[in-house]
Amino acid sequence: MEIKLSELEKYLEIEIPAGSENIKISGVAPVDTAGKTDITFITGEKFLKKLENSNAAAVLIPKGFVPPDNIIPLYVDDPFYSYIKVLEYFSPRRSADIASGMSPLSFIDESAELGKDVSIAPFVFIGEGVIIGDNTTIGAGTAVLKGSSIGSGCLIYPNVSIIDRTSIGNNVIIHAGVVIGSDGFGFYPYKNTIVKVPQIGRVEIGDNVELQANTCIDRAVMGVTMIEAGVKLDNLVHVGHNVRIGTNTVLAGQVGIAGSVMIGKGVQAGGQAGFAEHIKVGDRAGIAGQAGVTKDVPPGIIVSGYPAKEHMKAIKEEIHIRNLPDLKMRVKELEKRINELENKE
Amino acid sequence: MEIKLSELEKYLEIEIPAGSENIKISGVAPVDTAGKTDITFITGEKFLKKLENSNAAAVLIPKGFVPPDNIIPLYVDDPFYSYIKVLEYFSPRRSADIASGMSPLSFIDESAELGKDVSIAPFVFIGEGVIIGDNTTIGAGTAVLKGSSIGSGCLIYPNVSIIDRTSIGNNVIIHAGVVIGSDGFGFYPYKNTIVKVPQIGRVEIGDNVELQANTCIDRAVMGVTMIEAGVKLDNLVHVGHNVRIGTNTVLAGQVGIAGSVMIGKGVQAGGQAGFAEHIKVGDRAGIAGQAGVTKDVPPGIIVSGYPAKEHMKAIKEEIHIRNLPDLKMRVKELEKRINELENKE
Amino acid sequence: MEIKLSELEKYLEIEIPAGSENIKISGVAPVDTAGKTDITFITGEKFLKKLENSNAAAVLIPKGFVPPDNIIPLYVDDPFYSYIKVLEYFSPRRSADIASGMSPLSFIDESAELGKDVSIAPFVFIGEGVIIGDNTTIGAGTAVLKGSSIGSGCLIYPNVSIIDRTSIGNNVIIHAGVVIGSDGFGFYPYKNTIVKVPQIGRVEIGDNVELQANTCIDRAVMGVTMIEAGVKLDNLVHVGHNVRIGTNTVLAGQVGIAGSVMIGKGVQAGGQAGFAEHIKVGDRAGIAGQAGVTKDVPPGIIVSGYPAKEHMKAIKEEIHIRNLPDLKMRVKELEKRINELENKE
Repeated sequence: MEIKLSELEKYLEIEIPAGSENIKISGVAPVDTAGKTDITFITGEKFLKKLENSNAAAVLIPKGFVPPDNIIPLYVDDPFYSYIKVLEYFSPRRSADIASGMSPLSFIDESAELGKDVSIAPFVFIGEGVIIGDNTTIGAGTAVLKGSSIGSGCLIYPNVSIIDRTSIGNNVIIHAGVVIGSDGFGFYPYKNTIVKVPQIGRVEIGDNVELQANTCIDRAVMGVTMIEAGVKLDNLVHVGHNVRIGTNTVLAGQVGIAGSVMIGKGVQAGGQAGFAEHIKVGDRAGIAGQAGVTKDVPPGIIVSGYPAKEHMKAIKEEIHIRNLPDLKMRVKELEKRINELENKE
Repeated sequence: MEIKLSELEKYLEIEIPAGSENIKISGVAPVDTAGKTDITFITGEKFLKKLENSNAAAVLIPKGFVPPDNIIPLYVDDPFYSYIKVLEYFSPRRSADIASGMSPLSFIDESAELGKDVSIAPFVFIGEGVIIGDNTTIGAGTAVLKGSSIGSGCLIYPNVSIIDRTSIGNNVIIHAGVVIGSDGFGFYPYKNTIVKVPQIGRVEIGDNVELQANTCIDRAVMGVTMIEAGVKLDNLVHVGHNVRIGTNTVLAGQVGIAGSVMIGKGVQAGGQAGFAEHIKVGDRAGIAGQAGVTKDVPPGIIVSGYPAKEHMKAIKEEIHIRNLPDLKMRVKELEKRINELENKE
Repeated sequence: MEIKLSELEKYLEIEIPAGSENIKISGVAPVDTAGKTDITFITGEKFLKKLENSNAAAVLIPKGFVPPDNIIPLYVDDPFYSYIKVLEYFSPRRSADIASGMSPLSFIDESAELGKDVSIAPFVFIGEGVIIGDNTTIGAGTAVLKGSSIGSGCLIYPNVSIIDRTSIGNNVIIHAGVVIGSDGFGFYPYKNTIVKVPQIGRVEIGDNVELQANTCIDRAVMGVTMIEAGVKLDNLVHVGHNVRIGTNTVLAGQVGIAGSVMIGKGVQAGGQAGFAEHIKVGDRAGIAGQAGVTKDVPPGIIVSGYPAKEHMKAIKEEIHIRNLPDLKMRVKELEKRINELENKE
């Protein structure tokens, strides 16, 4: 796969140096590993020196910077964004790698409604009344149960389980092994037994959401568990029943969210962070990896540790703890000195 | 779907007010969102005021309480339990949403023995000598390997993997993506390699167990990994080899249990709690979310933190830590005062 | 299943006592549960007493030790290793329990290349250009996407998802529900949206690796996520993009590894440990369960806690924290004494 710089000029809506139109680019790579036909990028001054030893053919570079003579400068507003666009151009994957066309080895209930150019791999199960939008692709072994709907332009990888009456928006990416709409964890102790609270609610997934491998999203007891547009959940994330996750919130691997937690918009959480049930996390809050969030987090605040507290406070406490041996020595010293003072009297 | 109060009277074994027999109920909802044909519930006095603004048609209510005139009181011993029963009545899901009848697109080994009214979805694999009880339902893409047995009345959702020689009791619910009977994590360093310890044991799952999405239960090295009757495991729980979990124990999402841990009856653990190998947890112990349990927990004791300790002790330590800046100031002040005393001499 | 001691003599390359050749062994068990036809083992002197009450027929025992008269001693260099070999002999599982022969109910793309004696269960999807080595077995519902390759002698359990262009070595064991090659978690905030960074790299898995149930390994942004030979990952482990895990490293259940982490050879990590992105962990380092590793760990060092620090240091801090009530009392006492001293003047 190749692209001429003259084509890249149009694709990225940039201006390339005169005379470089016919240079061919065959790949994208970081500054230090880029080969002679690769394009690379730098985002700031401190990377300019690295560029001197780079073999790259061309560099996506902020305006005002001058690369070495042997590397063609491609001036852009946001080099990382342009780099993503070039990566997209070279990306060999997507729907064609998952399925192409309708496999006769799938099962599609006769009541299901499929849009145009839907691709369905072998061993996919599409249940009663399921609706699937245009250009959506579904991988081998995925099951979509009764009454669920999936929007257009979605990519559903293999072995995904979408339980009944789940709604999924447009341009959603769901990686292998994800489970959406399994029962919430609701039980009630009654006369020496534990009675199951029926989970009769649903899950709604907004547009442009991405759910990574083996992540689980429980259906609501009643009402809906809501994953709003643009949310990104990493691998092995657990979302309990009746949770709401706001637009563009990004949660890293193995985050766990207990029932009825409300997470705002634009929140970011590190891996293995946990949220206790019924708490509220404000917009744009930041949650450190492994934080154990046991109470509400105000908007924009960063918390860490267990139980989670404001990150600067947690760091100060950590320093105090680290200085405990010193504090103990000082107390010991004081005791010695006061003994001496008392003895003198 | 609708139910007349006269029918509900029989279903719940209660007495309804005279004249309300023909009132129709079409759903169940919390006090604040209930509509005009919904039934709701309150469990205590503090919710009575909320009821004043509720649109509910009827309320499940403890004896002795009086709701507003426009809401029909349905007196019950345990309103939450009765609410569960009504939820069950309205629950649209269950076996019919997973599979109905025997799909010709499944693979069932000729040596397998299936009970009456078993339902098997497309792309289910049933291996050699597998036994399945009456009224059990198995979802699309699930695999049940050689020599396993599943009791009656079970619901197995899609894409579950039940590895060979697993025994599953009656009325067990297994959500999508669960793996039962995969190898335990047993390795032995030998002459610069790591040798696998064959895991030749099995898994046994008691009656009325519920395993939620993507949970994994390892088979024993030798003998059995035992999940006793009534145990409930949330999503993404990890159970190591030779673990035993006692009756009616309830473990929340992403709990991790290392090999040979013995957990008693009626234990409750919060999300992401972890148990180190070979420890014993007594009956009715409580384990806080994210607790790292590194040694035995006596019966009835609540522990939290890492390493886990009695919860009250952990809270006191937390307060001591929070007061460290103050303690340091006091030591500093003491140093100043003692300096002054010493200088005076 | 049975084995005569004369056969075991050859199998283990040991010498058995004269006259015991025709004794038949039917199983392996720990000292305290071994029956009359079982073989057991002890690794050291402290287990000799246990042996006195054992019913075992024979014992794998270090040279120089003498078991009770009724138990035949089988002298070996490393009793635990010999016990593993006997377990292997009696192990009823392996490829035949997963699949035997090529199922006509699988889908194998005509461009795929399969070696000799490959077994493929029903509902397996093998995509375009996939290569599979000799004697490899693939369980029901597993999907192997376009351009991936799997070596010889591998065991792939049911419902595994191997995403496009993944390379897997020889003698690799992959348990049910594992996902290999799903996208890394790469996103870039751009003008109020979150743009996906295409993940165009791959995953490589070395020889003799074992991946346990529902573990997830992300493909690289560019380049490769590398799991080197002999690595063992327990259930529900999360491996981010561009991670490298060195030879013979062993990571317990629910460990989480953020993007671009470099883990050395022979590292061991306990359950639920987490690694922050871009850090380096040296060869033979030890990471305690639930440790939150936020910076590089030197070779051979053991760390624990959050943020992770050298284990001995963490233990000392823990003791200091436990002694805080005492320290506070001492400060209080000092204040009292200094008050008295000041008042005397």
